[in-house]
Amino acid sequence: MSERPYAIGVDFGTESGRVLVLDTRTGEELAVAVVPYRSAVIDRALPGGEPLGDDWALQDPDDWMTVLEAGIPQALSDAGIQGDAVAGVGVDVTSCTVLPVNAQGEPLCRIAGLRDRPHAWPKLWKHHAAQPVADRLNLVARERGEDFLTRYGGRISSEWYFPKLIEIWLEDRAVYDRSAAFLEATDWLVWQLTGDECRQSCTAAYKAMWSADDGLPSREYFAAAYPGFGDPAAKLGTAFAPLGTRAGGLTAQRAQRLELPAGTAVAVGNVDSFVSVPGAGVQETGVFVSVIGTSICDMVLGGREVRMPGITGVARDGILPGLWGYEAGQAAVGDMLAWFVRTLGRGLDAYAELEAGASEIAPGATGLLALDWFNGNRSILADADLTGVILGLTLQSRPEEIYRALLESISFGNRRIMDNFHEHGVLLHEIVACGGIAEKSPLTMQLFADISGRPVRVPASSEIPARGAALFGAVAAGRFADIGAAVRATRPPSARRYQPDPAAGAVYDRVYAIHRTLHDALGDTQVELLHGLKRIRADTRRRSR
Amino acid sequence: MSERPYAIGVDFGTESGRVLVLDTRTGEELAVAVVPYRSAVIDRALPGGEPLGDDWALQDPDDWMTVLEAGIPQALSDAGIQGDAVAGVGVDVTSCTVLPVNAQGEPLCRIAGLRDRPHAWPKLWKHHAAQPVADRLNLVARERGEDFLTRYGGRISSEWYFPKLIEIWLEDRAVYDRSAAFLEATDWLVWQLTGDECRQSCTAAYKAMWSADDGLPSREYFAAAYPGFGDPAAKLGTAFAPLGTRAGGLTAQRAQRLELPAGTAVAVGNVDSFVSVPGAGVQETGVFVSVIGTSICDMVLGGREVRMPGITGVARDGILPGLWGYEAGQAAVGDMLAWFVRTLGRGLDAYAELEAGASEIAPGATGLLALDWFNGNRSILADADLTGVILGLTLQSRPEEIYRALLESISFGNRRIMDNFHEHGVLLHEIVACGGIAEKSPLTMQLFADISGRPVRVPASSEIPARGAALFGAVAAGRFADIGAAVRATRPPSARRYQPDPAAGAVYDRVYAIHRTLHDALGDTQVELLHGLKRIRADTRRRSR
Repeated sequence: MSERPYAIGVDFGTESGRVLVLDTRTGEELAVAVVPYRSAVIDRALPGGEPLGDDWALQDPDDWMTVLEAGIPQALSDAGIQGDAVAGVGVDVTSCTVLPVNAQGEPLCRIAGLRDRPHAWPKLWKHHAAQPVADRLNLVARERGEDFLTRYGGRISSEWYFPKLIEIWLEDRAVYDRSAAFLEATDWLVWQLTGDECRQSCTAAYKAMWSADDGLPSREYFAAAYPGFGDPAAKLGTAFAPLGTRAGGLTAQRAQRLELPAGTAVAVGNVDSFVSVPGAGVQETGVFVSVIGTSICDMVLGGREVRMPGITGVARDGILPGLWGYEAGQAAVGDMLAWFVRTLGRGLDAYAELEAGASEIAPGATGLLALDWFNGNRSILADADLTGVILGLTLQSRPEEIYRALLESISFGNRRIMDNFHEHGVLLHEIVACGGIAEKSPLTMQLFADISGRPVRVPASSEIPARGAALFGAVAAGRFADIGAAVRATRPPSARRYQPDPAAGAVYDRVYAIHRTLHDALGDTQVELLHGLKRIRADTRRRSR
Repeated sequence: MSERPYAIGVDFGTESGRVLVLDTRTGEELAVAVVPYRSAVIDRALPGGEPLGDDWALQDPDDWMTVLEAGIPQALSDAGIQGDAVAGVGVDVTSCTVLPVNAQGEPLCRIAGLRDRPHAWPKLWKHHAAQPVADRLNLVARERGEDFLTRYGGRISSEWYFPKLIEIWLEDRAVYDRSAAFLEATDWLVWQLTGDECRQSCTAAYKAMWSADDGLPSREYFAAAYPGFGDPAAKLGTAFAPLGTRAGGLTAQRAQRLELPAGTAVAVGNVDSFVSVPGAGVQETGVFVSVIGTSICDMVLGGREVRMPGITGVARDGILPGLWGYEAGQAAVGDMLAWFVRTLGRGLDAYAELEAGASEIAPGATGLLALDWFNGNRSILADADLTGVILGLTLQSRPEEIYRALLESISFGNRRIMDNFHEHGVLLHEIVACGGIAEKSPLTMQLFADISGRPVRVPASSEIPARGAALFGAVAAGRFADIGAAVRATRPPSARRYQPDPAAGAVYDRVYAIHRTLHDALGDTQVELLHGLKRIRADTRRRSR
């Protein structure tokens, strides 16, 4: 255990990648290298100038390779260690971020003659242009009573694998036919590191409607939705390696460029939100793990499968081997607060001012109530056509009161998700929160505690996902018997703990009752109000084009 | 008709008074003198330092006298005319603005020993501290099935005469007992000018629940609500002069200070919103007159009485002799826009920028819908405990889109009021709009036209109320046979006309259907949502005191 005590975790986010060197003996973070993507999110035009439609969001695979090749040597250097002290490497990427490649694993967007074809490029998780495909897949699944839907809260997302794949099949058959595979960026990166294609089961289960027990939805289902589409496994494959296993070793060529020894163990790919669970030191059931940034991803480990509405998905071994992994989330969090600051025309320091002002206000004293649906509702309504709402405005309403109402709206949304788990028998006794807002907004964390009535723990690390990726790298290298052992050995200390205040909770119970009524009215029984506004807006914009 | 062709109108607003010299031969405005009130609105502490409670709003009668004594000589000088060329004087004041006086007409707040008693001061229209009294008066009236309520849309307001009077009786019996009368500021000012007490019927009907046919509500009713209160006419009187008559002539002493001849005709007092109807050149039925400023007052003339819900009141001869006058309104208009600009942290030029930006947006294209209940809803719900709402917010919502949604919310509120008249048989074919926003916001006026489907006319004058007051002064002096003749002779030209755009109207019909559903849900069937938030806020603030 002594000569190679370090592991590297590489976390590929939306705007940049982060390389962490972790001491697997202590959990200490030795160095972090941050490498921004040159092209960031490609959402207006391809690098060659080809314009993109509404709701498109692409990335450049060369940017990901730069993270590896610039970031790993930099992090090693900053940590003051040699590459031969590294036992293993793990990667995590946003998901569902998927790209078409040829049989050699070359992204089609790199191939001459295809660079100006938008569908040849990697589609980022937040590419939403395939919504019509998702709508049709949902409709047909409901009509046919497809059982797989119940694993996904009753509805699949336009962000997922098949909507993005069928979008290519519908709109650029040449690219579709040229692709040998259409795979998650995380699996593609592992392929680049090891030289072997090795897809993992996590995204297959959460994003490609696959399950270990039932496989993929039937060919008949896809044919009913899109006659002629053919075998759904054609570009996806059928063999998926479980999380926590070794995908292979670094190729000699790649190893040299990364300044690591050839053969260094590489874990199967993973997803940023899911690796955050072991990254945050969580391996047990009953804990609600919230990764709070631009949006919120919630993860829960369960000892059994409960198929329930209102979640994003449930999969066996989906997060940690041996447990059922549940996913849920909120669509606009940091994004919504940034919107408010931008709307007020204030600079970055406005966050601190607003947090300070909002912290001085007593629970219930704003008289305001917001619904955080500024980017739709992910859980528990799974409706991208919902929009944000503010009630209770008066001539005396101050910016810091509205800001507090927005923070409360996030917390009420959080409670509603937790209540949904609870009502379906998945009990939760603690929140573990990580991500930018968990670190920077003590008020938000106190609201999570007060409104949910549960203690909140924030681990002392800004590198939770990269920690998780590094732990999987260490497991792949055999430094730990399994990921559970890795978590126990490296669990980060808690930076802060928040206890629910019963007096605040009593006030918020009253507000939450109103929230719940409003949520169910505008999100369900009277959903035509918000849907109608959105439809009028779309009609108007279509006419004015 | 030749030697005294001018009339003076004095308009007493909330923050200042305005003196207009009008040429009654042509309708030309010769001069305007604006005199700000030194104490403006007294809402935190009396001039002597005595603190005031929440929702108090007082004024200083000395400020009103300064308007007369400084403003009239100034306006005469600016107009370049002598006082003996003035035929008559009319005044209008905000209402219900009421004060207690002794038998000589001296305001109790001027009397030594009473200056530090808040109830001795004039209560401004927007003094809302008597809400509990209004609530009780409404409750008992409903329980007893009092017929008078049907003249007031089913509900009396805390701003009116008896809530403010009974508040004194409950809280400062000494002031109540010392007062010989409790009267409208407009009647007090006429008393100061002529030396004789002469109360008019307009405020008696609209604010003191009196009608020419039925008199006051019964003594039994008041006793049921407030045992021991006694005769409701004790401080109000029972004789009320009709609008359009002469109250008397200027006393010698007063005339000298005003630089007018003694005996100059003075019209009976009047109210700023009501005088705006003849001031705007309106004397016919079927026209919806909107005075659009901080809030909106709507006036309609009708040939018959229709008792309907959702209006502020209806009274025979209440606005113009021979017709039924209807009043309705919206509680937060300019106030709401000022709130938005203040919340954005912008300066005064933001209005022009926001109007320009909002004007470029197509109908329906914001996807937003607001309810303008930032200061409650006056018509058609008459509920001060409602609060503002914004629906449809997204991460892309821009300030000018929200601003447009607020302007649209005013216009939807306006349409709802007009629809209410229509549904009760009071037909309306045109809007005549005046006041600051009518002059400054062409977008708001176009929205009024597009959303209501009716043409909008904005008279070319910033002095509509003072014009109306001057016309009553001219009628009192005998220059016209009646106010109708005065209106016909002096009608101001139209500065702008707005025609409804059918294409915009078609889009707004769709949005209005959603507005109407939301309005009825949050304002009626699910009113507990907004009321609940307000109650929680009040409870929280009470506890933290």
